Amino acid sequence: MAKSMSLLWGAGSPPCWRVMITLEEKRLQGYKRKLLSFQKGEHKSQEVLELNPRGQLPAFRHGDVVVNESTAACLYLENRFQSQGNRLIPDSPAEQALVFQRMMEGLTLTDRLNSVIYYDLLVPEEERHDSTLKRSKETLSTELQLWEGYLQNVWSISNHTPVSLRLTASALFPMWSFIQTLSAGRFPKLAKYYSLLKERPSIKASWPPQWMSSRQGYGVLKDL
Amino acid sequence: MAKSMSLLWGAGSPPCWRVMITLEEKRLQGYKRKLLSFQKGEHKSQEVLELNPRGQLPAFRHGDVVVNESTAACLYLENRFQSQGNRLIPDSPAEQALVFQRMMEGLTLTDRLNSVIYYDLLVPEEERHDSTLKRSKETLSTELQLWEGYLQNVWSISNHTPVSLRLTASALFPMWSFIQTLSAGRFPKLAKYYSLLKERPSIKASWPPQWMSSRQGYGVLKDL
Repeated sequence: MAKSMSLLWGAGSPPCWRVMITLEEKRLQGYKRKLLSFQKGEHKSQEVLELNPRGQLPAFRHGDVVVNESTAACLYLENRFQSQGNRLIPDSPAEQALVFQRMMEGLTLTDRLNSVIYYDLLVPEEERHDSTLKRSKETLSTELQLWEGYLQNVWSISNHTPVSLRLTASALFPMWSFIQTLSAGRFPKLAKYYSLLKERPSIKASWPPQWMSSRQGYGVLKDL
Repeated sequence: MAKSMSLLWGAGSPPCWRVMITLEEKRLQGYKRKLLSFQKGEHKSQEVLELNPRGQLPAFRHGDVVVNESTAACLYLENRFQSQGNRLIPDSPAEQALVFQRMMEGLTLTDRLNSVIYYDLLVPEEERHDSTLKRSKETLSTELQLWEGYLQNVWSISNHTPVSLRLTASALFPMWSFIQTLSAGRFPKLAKYYSLLKERPSIKASWPPQWMSSRQGYGVLKDL
């Protein structure tokens, strides 16, 4: 089945890795995969634009189905291959609600992380303000404290259900990997969750080359 | 069943209305509903914070299940009440992929709309730049043209399947309602889609009081 799948992806892109982790969790190996360079602008190439008019990666195809939004691709793959590999959406309505809730909250975390990490990249120099970045860091810090609180209960839940297998973890791990640059003293649960997830076979198998090989670029997160 | 549900909501909030439309589509009337005032800061009240630590609306509860992210609530309600009311996620994998894809893209549309409509509200005066707002308007205009293109095919799809019933429409309608202030000449398909959806019983029944009673505030969209 995976032979009818293709993924155009870029190294360093959390949405791309999100789809790759999910494909591993669903045992959909052997798909056609092509690494493109953001630096060379290959995400704006005709090859990408034909699949994804936004000129963004990932660009994912399964037969005639094209689904490029990474969260949408995860939902599609889980529904389409429900009985294959690991179940990423649990059966119990209460657990389902929690997975959907955290998955969507994860997008807020992503936005808040991006607005700090990529501030200089996203905002032209003449429009930058120290006060904006300071406020964004405060917002991110509050956000991370919220997740630190959520993770208080993960360990007890994981005694009963393999929550680390679930869609939330697959969808969020690429963001957690940025979070490794945070102070483990200030965010001990996040640090523990990160170290637990990074040993998962799906994550090891899909780890993009040169991902976070240098942490220098994320020094902006150190003083949160 | 709906008697065990409660919704804390605010007028003028697209995420709140999104959940209310979905509840109507699933024939889950009769839930406990309380209108709170953003102006009075009631979304930061203890009553909300106990359900939603972000201090945001909606705050939605169904029995012991709390799910506040509006898209997560829509997914939860559709899965939990699959055989009740209208099916919001289709059975066919290809259609499912499309619904998930547009649902997630809708969040990008929302962000881009918010960054224009709420620019003055979100950014302190001393950090505002005409160049930022101009760029945000250009990005929004490109985004809207993309959706205008997507809607080229809606009419043919709707001959076969009631796509207007689907989750994407429920999730997006509150945003479309802002879009009514756009030039129908420039975005004829969006205008047609809006006028088609606004007649749906679920949307009529849940229409928040004073929603868009004044269009003056959205004049910023007129010159897109």
